[in-house]
Amino acid sequence: MASSNAYAPSAPELPESFGQHQYDGENRYTYAYPLYQQTQQLSSSSGMFSPETHPQIVRSFESADRDRSGFLEESELRQALSLSGYEGISNRTIRFLLFIYKSPGDSLLRLGPKEYVELWNCLAQWRVIFDRYDRDRTGKINATELRDAFFHLGYMLPTSVLQLIISQFDDGTGNAVDLCFDSFLECGMIVKGLTEKFKENDPGYTGYATLPYDVFMLMVIPFVVSYD
Amino acid sequence: MASSNAYAPSAPELPESFGQHQYDGENRYTYAYPLYQQTQQLSSSSGMFSPETHPQIVRSFESADRDRSGFLEESELRQALSLSGYEGISNRTIRFLLFIYKSPGDSLLRLGPKEYVELWNCLAQWRVIFDRYDRDRTGKINATELRDAFFHLGYMLPTSVLQLIISQFDDGTGNAVDLCFDSFLECGMIVKGLTEKFKENDPGYTGYATLPYDVFMLMVIPFVVSYD
Repeated sequence: MASSNAYAPSAPELPESFGQHQYDGENRYTYAYPLYQQTQQLSSSSGMFSPETHPQIVRSFESADRDRSGFLEESELRQALSLSGYEGISNRTIRFLLFIYKSPGDSLLRLGPKEYVELWNCLAQWRVIFDRYDRDRTGKINATELRDAFFHLGYMLPTSVLQLIISQFDDGTGNAVDLCFDSFLECGMIVKGLTEKFKENDPGYTGYATLPYDVFMLMVIPFVVSYD
Repeated sequence: MASSNAYAPSAPELPESFGQHQYDGENRYTYAYPLYQQTQQLSSSSGMFSPETHPQIVRSFESADRDRSGFLEESELRQALSLSGYEGISNRTIRFLLFIYKSPGDSLLRLGPKEYVELWNCLAQWRVIFDRYDRDRTGKINATELRDAFFHLGYMLPTSVLQLIISQFDDGTGNAVDLCFDSFLECGMIVKGLTEKFKENDPGYTGYATLPYDVFMLMVIPFVVSYD
């Protein structure tokens, strides 16, 4: 039904600012393919931190885990992220982070040490990319620069998808507005989360997934229903 | 791949309160099948109201259409709904309503008379159902009654999907909270919108849809990205 390079025609052009980067061919044209997976391999078993974990990660986790459950629930995660310099993250984004980073086998929305390390490393990486585009240090990036930032984060989205995401952030009259870090993170988590759900149903990376109605709804509703 | 009654095993039991209703067999077991389509056939062409349109609908549209464009944009729709007794609808839900009811051929988020009549009739019907379950007139319904309300509105959702929707509305400790009309409407529009998008990709009503990655993302993102 689809060839392995089915996305080549719809893949966006490379941003001009990346002209000097080596183009690594086919890999970039698979859909939203994460290039930075190595940053998520720093932790060991779920129940404790591995010795090489950055002390700031351990400290923020242990300070926020007030009930000493070994897990961070919603309010504890907000506290842990605040201790790590991520203040003002909305309830909605916190829930996305919990939903996307929690252990798949855990029915509760909470993070253990292993999951927290993965989230922490992802946030650090996203923060670096965000700051790179926030050149005037206003705490916001231009909506059109979102595309370059996604590319840098390893997500090569079809142009139509990028345009749709950007169009969601306008001032109601069709003018795009700048994105704060929270909105940037929210967009990123949505793209990451939906793409991973899709891939679970496309094990052969064909670019197509055949979904029963209930699976489709169960995939999507956690991203859709408002929490605030 | 799927028989025509693929949803029968996962269809929820009929709510007890509907025990006296006639069970209309197979139709109820198609996924989220709208039973009330006749309420959406009251208007004629897109550009003007048909003579039989309820005067309150025409009045609210014309009062709110301040720029006399013949369309209601976001703030005008909020005003029109407020004039019709629907106050306090969130920005997020207003955008859902625009997205779901706008003419498919219109690239802008706005409603003409035809679309507004459809929305108005849908809201009136949903309000009646909501009030039926809001027995103590607190302006809220119990989250578990959402299932009965959906059934009454013609959406027969798989139990797993209903449970997931209900689980999204909790107080952070796993206890379900009551839903105001706005949340009820938001849930309903999400179910309606996603189900219709799915059906567009399942013209044979098999219960399965084969989706390319970009189509999947384009279907879902308008429901996901936050507007507030």
